Amino acid sequence: MTEPLAPGSTIGILGGGQLGRMLALAAARLGLRTAIFDPDPNAPAGQVSDSLTTAAYTDSNALKSWVETVDVVTYEFENIPTEALDILESAKPIHPNRKALAVSQDRLTEKAFLSDLGLKTAPFAAIDDMDDMTEALDEIGAPAILKTRRFGYDGKGQARIMAPEDAEQALADMNGAPAIYEGFVNFTHEVSVIAARGTTGEVACFDPGENVHVNGILHTTTVPANLTGKQRTDAVLLAGQILNRLGYVGVMGVELFVTPQGLVVNEIAPRVHNSGHWTQAGCAVDQFEQHIRAVAGWPLGDGARHADVVMTNLIGDDAHTWPELAKEADTQIHLYGKAEAREGRKMGHVNRVIRAK
Amino acid sequence: MTEPLAPGSTIGILGGGQLGRMLALAAARLGLRTAIFDPDPNAPAGQVSDSLTTAAYTDSNALKSWVETVDVVTYEFENIPTEALDILESAKPIHPNRKALAVSQDRLTEKAFLSDLGLKTAPFAAIDDMDDMTEALDEIGAPAILKTRRFGYDGKGQARIMAPEDAEQALADMNGAPAIYEGFVNFTHEVSVIAARGTTGEVACFDPGENVHVNGILHTTTVPANLTGKQRTDAVLLAGQILNRLGYVGVMGVELFVTPQGLVVNEIAPRVHNSGHWTQAGCAVDQFEQHIRAVAGWPLGDGARHADVVMTNLIGDDAHTWPELAKEADTQIHLYGKAEAREGRKMGHVNRVIRAK
Repeated sequence: MTEPLAPGSTIGILGGGQLGRMLALAAARLGLRTAIFDPDPNAPAGQVSDSLTTAAYTDSNALKSWVETVDVVTYEFENIPTEALDILESAKPIHPNRKALAVSQDRLTEKAFLSDLGLKTAPFAAIDDMDDMTEALDEIGAPAILKTRRFGYDGKGQARIMAPEDAEQALADMNGAPAIYEGFVNFTHEVSVIAARGTTGEVACFDPGENVHVNGILHTTTVPANLTGKQRTDAVLLAGQILNRLGYVGVMGVELFVTPQGLVVNEIAPRVHNSGHWTQAGCAVDQFEQHIRAVAGWPLGDGARHADVVMTNLIGDDAHTWPELAKEADTQIHLYGKAEAREGRKMGHVNRVIRAK
Repeated sequence: MTEPLAPGSTIGILGGGQLGRMLALAAARLGLRTAIFDPDPNAPAGQVSDSLTTAAYTDSNALKSWVETVDVVTYEFENIPTEALDILESAKPIHPNRKALAVSQDRLTEKAFLSDLGLKTAPFAAIDDMDDMTEALDEIGAPAILKTRRFGYDGKGQARIMAPEDAEQALADMNGAPAIYEGFVNFTHEVSVIAARGTTGEVACFDPGENVHVNGILHTTTVPANLTGKQRTDAVLLAGQILNRLGYVGVMGVELFVTPQGLVVNEIAPRVHNSGHWTQAGCAVDQFEQHIRAVAGWPLGDGARHADVVMTNLIGDDAHTWPELAKEADTQIHLYGKAEAREGRKMGHVNRVIRAK
């Protein structure tokens, strides 16, 4: 256990999208500086951070120079090249750790890790070729989903297999990428737990939020979620199990399916999570500050919720509704500083405070 | 009435101290960019803004170049040289306007303006020489306070006159600066109203906060303030009168003495105000976002308060208590990114949420 980083220290953040931006804003509130590393010179986080290094994640020299300017490294996305991690880790602490990244970068490793912890997941099978596929169709059946093991997000790199005869084409579309076949889970709704673990091992969870997706992209998160007291406790306990087993430091998003047989873990994300944006309007310490506190070795916020909130993403042209949204009472608008409102692009979100507690 | 500034537009801020910094952070949430102008290369706002121009407020060329990069100009302090304002105003809109600055830059002009509106102020007299002083001592008596008319803040440039015989030395200490003699007001406590007016003329007020000063510097602001319903209404109405008379756009801090005979206006500040920092923990739209919304021509937040809050300033070495403060539940820590904790320097503040409503 090291000392907490004093105000004036610098948090290095790999990735300068909206998550990196909101992490930088949270760090600034605490008097901590941020240095962003992102290949895009227009990375939104660069507008609000002390420095922006523009280079590829494969640029060893740039990584080496950058890491010397920071006190600790964190990230806003999980698909960081292994070579980059090797360089960074030899110079400074990285939170969350390599183990968390390794588990969450690969859907198969993730499912195996969760099963090993005794947690429920969707039925799954590794798919490297048509033989695996045939076996999986026998065991798991259809409909189901074929996904790449790595580099998938927001519904990309996925194919629904509605019937066994769809499988061959879907596998061909993977272009030889290692894949995983996942059975459907018969769930009533999806919730997520935003959990955090500090350097001293303390764990704090925000109240689970209920997620609604549209076209594979998160649309709304509502707190409180529709859960029984037992389900709420289970959600928090399983998140704690995951964090502790990984020796995790930082905020994690844990997506859960709610089924009559209990909670099924959909996936984990080793970072702040879109379904935790509501905490900005509902908690004294939001998920971004919580993550910064954790990686800086500070005490965590307790996660207490003081309002009911509905978070709605602003996707693509939704962002153009800001003049109307600005007229709403008790509505926080967050816009990410992205110039172009492309279709499907996350441009911002609103947190509507429905009721103060 | 012009169109509201779209996200991606740039707000120019004169002054990059803690107020400029929190304005920049608020603008970023709305997807607006900020360009800071400050003589200090280590200005705290520079750490979180798109650009920092380091030059003197008397550097015409720097001002001319800078103003071309922004869409609107605002400021975090009222003592801006007239020549700078001339240059800036000829290029871009300035909010709040020159009239508001002229009134608040000079204690005598301010008192005259408030009296003219029919509002109560402390008894006052202009002091240019010992003859004025003698006359004022006759009319107003002692104890009272001799203050420079311009450039005073946090108790600087002031002398208490406890008895008539103190007056000559106090006047000599003014070094010939035009001064004002202010009688004491027999008040029970001080409150302030943080009020805002938008470009369409709409006015919104936050709930008044009760202020406690220590050594002439604000120590705490508590909401709700100890006020009767009538006093609360009076406070809001008089703030609205001031804003409307000035054709004001932006947030203003109005300090009020509470007396058995009613509210007495102490002073007005044409900017976000230390006594409004509690809004960060108590309102969906805080005073910083409110000011940005106003100067950008956006609709204002309604000022509704959803929690009881005590704001406490962290002055000088107080900032070193952050490890303990970070352990408190329901406490927001704000640190300003200043390297050196000099005595009397505002280093940060905490907002303690006492009770959610």
